[in-house]
Amino acid sequence: MLTLHYNPLTISAATAIVLEELEVPYTPILVDFSDVSQQSPAYLALNPKGRVPTLQTPQGVLTETGAILEYLAAQHGPHLIPEDPFQAARMRETMHYLASTVHVNYAHAMRGPRWADLESSWADMTAKAPHTMAASLAYLEGHLDFAPFAIGNSLTLADPWLFVLTGFATRLHIDIAQFPNLSAHQVMMHDRYAVRAARNKGMLA
Amino acid sequence: MLTLHYNPLTISAATAIVLEELEVPYTPILVDFSDVSQQSPAYLALNPKGRVPTLQTPQGVLTETGAILEYLAAQHGPHLIPEDPFQAARMRETMHYLASTVHVNYAHAMRGPRWADLESSWADMTAKAPHTMAASLAYLEGHLDFAPFAIGNSLTLADPWLFVLTGFATRLHIDIAQFPNLSAHQVMMHDRYAVRAARNKGMLA
Repeated sequence: MLTLHYNPLTISAATAIVLEELEVPYTPILVDFSDVSQQSPAYLALNPKGRVPTLQTPQGVLTETGAILEYLAAQHGPHLIPEDPFQAARMRETMHYLASTVHVNYAHAMRGPRWADLESSWADMTAKAPHTMAASLAYLEGHLDFAPFAIGNSLTLADPWLFVLTGFATRLHIDIAQFPNLSAHQVMMHDRYAVRAARNKGMLA
Repeated sequence: MLTLHYNPLTISAATAIVLEELEVPYTPILVDFSDVSQQSPAYLALNPKGRVPTLQTPQGVLTETGAILEYLAAQHGPHLIPEDPFQAARMRETMHYLASTVHVNYAHAMRGPRWADLESSWADMTAKAPHTMAASLAYLEGHLDFAPFAIGNSLTLADPWLFVLTGFATRLHIDIAQFPNLSAHQVMMHDRYAVRAARNKGMLA
């Protein structure tokens, strides 16, 4: 049995969607950020990074969305990874860009203390985040296939991640309508069965 | 034939090491940061992100170290990915942490303008970077196998990446000796055949 430590406002929603896509049973455990549960001794013993998602598997604990999604695909759904090695690499290129550039740009809006100590720096980062986030979205808008999925004509691991992270952009008051491809992807994913199932379970805000 | 656009001071060195491990022929093209070649129109046409590495393959262009290394393993060296899905996921957990946390912490030492506009913010980030980088290394020190490789007893895609990024820490005046496992990994990798071959070709500073 799998246990997913999640918070519906975070990127853990991407893992929940993939679990629903694969119809893999899992036990959800909410990590309540309002009382900083992600920094509790019990949670840090599980995941010293103090972040979500954390997936408990029969073999041990996994962190990092990119690793968790690959594990779920390897165990339960190889069809979520393109068979062609180049297309699989394009999927992973998208996943790494989402993790290390797009999400990082987004995080500067409210997680300045991770990288700087002065309030003036945090305000500076917060002000710039909508611009870096919009630049990231513009890159994705022009680079992905949207045929209609991020990579080709079937859902891959990149799609739930792209869907959740693009959704975050609205929190920075970015108008997604300026990106027609991303907008269409949002609409398509919003009412997909797995997304609604995850939302109905409270895994996705 | 593969063409690798690289700069020896950057994480593109990890790709070069993997190419040498797999004895895959490639054409190296230096991207000279001293004249900001990574922002030239010709380079941006290839990789709009203006970063290295960029790998030109017969099927098209790939960016993002995590995608490039997976592509090389899929095409030329599946032995660089653990067969067991959980261990493979631990390798990818390490790769995603290196990309989205460790490298990002490091980048704040000199790439502040990516995320903030004020000189005072850049100085603040530069001052904090050695601390966040050291915290990342402490996590890796306690979490990886070092048996003697990052994941288990044979080289995986995580090792060249870990080696290059840990090496960057010395630029922030972090004493790696305080991390005995990472130090031993550095020593082991430093004189590995593929690493020396990459260094001899100028792919690695």
